[in-house]
Amino acid sequence: MKKFINDPTTVLADALRGVQAAVPGVRVDLDNRVILRADAPRSGKVGLVSGGGSGHEPMHGGFVGPGMLDAACAGEVFTSPTPDQMLAATKAVDGGAGVLHIVKNYTGDVLNFEMAAELASAEGIRVESVVVADDVAVEDSTWTAGRRGVGTTVILEKIVGAAAEAGQDLDAVKALAEKVSANGRSMGVALTSCTVPAAGKPTFELPDDQMEVGVGIHGEPGRHREALASAREIARMLVDPILHDFDASGPAIVMLSGLGGTPLIELYLLYGEIAPLLAAGGVDAKRILVGDYITSLDMAGASLTVVKADDELLRLWDAPVETAGLRWGA
Amino acid sequence: MKKFINDPTTVLADALRGVQAAVPGVRVDLDNRVILRADAPRSGKVGLVSGGGSGHEPMHGGFVGPGMLDAACAGEVFTSPTPDQMLAATKAVDGGAGVLHIVKNYTGDVLNFEMAAELASAEGIRVESVVVADDVAVEDSTWTAGRRGVGTTVILEKIVGAAAEAGQDLDAVKALAEKVSANGRSMGVALTSCTVPAAGKPTFELPDDQMEVGVGIHGEPGRHREALASAREIARMLVDPILHDFDASGPAIVMLSGLGGTPLIELYLLYGEIAPLLAAGGVDAKRILVGDYITSLDMAGASLTVVKADDELLRLWDAPVETAGLRWGA
Repeated sequence: MKKFINDPTTVLADALRGVQAAVPGVRVDLDNRVILRADAPRSGKVGLVSGGGSGHEPMHGGFVGPGMLDAACAGEVFTSPTPDQMLAATKAVDGGAGVLHIVKNYTGDVLNFEMAAELASAEGIRVESVVVADDVAVEDSTWTAGRRGVGTTVILEKIVGAAAEAGQDLDAVKALAEKVSANGRSMGVALTSCTVPAAGKPTFELPDDQMEVGVGIHGEPGRHREALASAREIARMLVDPILHDFDASGPAIVMLSGLGGTPLIELYLLYGEIAPLLAAGGVDAKRILVGDYITSLDMAGASLTVVKADDELLRLWDAPVETAGLRWGA
Repeated sequence: MKKFINDPTTVLADALRGVQAAVPGVRVDLDNRVILRADAPRSGKVGLVSGGGSGHEPMHGGFVGPGMLDAACAGEVFTSPTPDQMLAATKAVDGGAGVLHIVKNYTGDVLNFEMAAELASAEGIRVESVVVADDVAVEDSTWTAGRRGVGTTVILEKIVGAAAEAGQDLDAVKALAEKVSANGRSMGVALTSCTVPAAGKPTFELPDDQMEVGVGIHGEPGRHREALASAREIARMLVDPILHDFDASGPAIVMLSGLGGTPLIELYLLYGEIAPLLAAGGVDAKRILVGDYITSLDMAGASLTVVKADDELLRLWDAPVETAGLRWGA
């Protein structure tokens, strides 16, 4: 295992110290392992809390800041955060207008966020939740009932973040989150496994001439394995299941995220093959992200996300955002 | 070799098509393999041209756009662009105020940019050049006389880009470039080799328990190999040679760039170890970048860059920039 770590048991704590040192706009609660907007809570603003297992950076901690999340709870690598972490985050960002929990559909995340919501409610904080389940690869998986939640979460956090920043109330923000979630689909592929530091060896074995089509972001099995193919063929394996799953025609926000071990030149090359397939399917890619946004430690691979986006969603997408992972001005 | 490619011989052309499809603010000259600002040439603005071998993305093509470069010439992977490419870029961005060539110190790049400058001069375009040679690891290297040019180039392109955007003339922009170059130092480390697509196998052999300290961004040998160490020890191996090389005390812009195969969680963890060492050395890290900015294909590793930055440089750093690789508002 070749990684920049001190000790497999202190990876999360050490990485959070790095975030604290490197990112000026956030405050890191090292005890609760929560990354917070430095100016939280914002009075009268709906608070946005997400979180999940670590190892998917920049998601979620890299999306904390003006125009996006108020807090992100960091679990151990590939492990759900606890209800206590989520409660601490919820209390820290509540500015009196309620809090939305943005949850990826993994059983541990869902159960723990539900418990945290109940605990927060008991303390008088109104909490609503949205669960993202956008991965078209498989129904049910290693840690999931139903579909896994992946890349649409990134797009959702940006769009809902803009709405909360603009002063929309909790009902409106929740309805918007449901709208984004309903309009997003994702599909991934792995060329290699990842290595969890505490395990010290690859999560799964993948022969040198094979790839895993439909892989999950923790290395969960996908649809099938097959011989390593060209970028042109892989593009089709990512696009077709998405277009088969819903009518994606019309304007959209498209994200091609690397999984951590794949460099940008390959992602651009792959996007060059994806673009004409999306266009042929009627997808009008109005906004495009190519880079590392939702990762799986050091896995070589990529995931494609398509979110259908009307004028409302595009306008919120374009609103200013100031986070470590996404940043632009008005 | 597990990569998203179609054919090892078409990697650059295919990747440029991906850039063209994904990045709205640029125009890709596929014949000359030049990435240009969509609105080039800008009348009365000093044109900024950089370039080099591909495989270091987002540098340089990802830094083309308002507030940064006007054009980037893309050579084949780890191969200098030709004088013809550089001449085409120079002519395409000249708005009558002259052009600055930003060159990393590799012999091929330097010679080809010199020839391109002569050819452009013969056509009546005034060209000045700055050569970045900031890598403290070694004196002379596989493809370099003197020091190699690495991460300071990224910082320089942003700062000089802001000055050119603000209307500074060629003499002022060149002087500013020399100032940034003189104030920057870098040091890198590799945990693995990279694999050049056309070679199909790792550039060098590095045993599972070893790392290369002072590696170049093409896999050139560094200072020495030693046993894989903790992030805390590696941080010292990056910081000490820089602090030993010049008086880095005072305000600075600090960049920790991944080399392509290292995920963000490890970079933040490593930065958490670097930060206190820099502070102990008197470095006041006013602006910090952690992520992939200058890479070496799929190499696992990182490089640290420290650029001493007075108020002038910090103000130019903070000016708006709108590129695929760096983007922020006013």
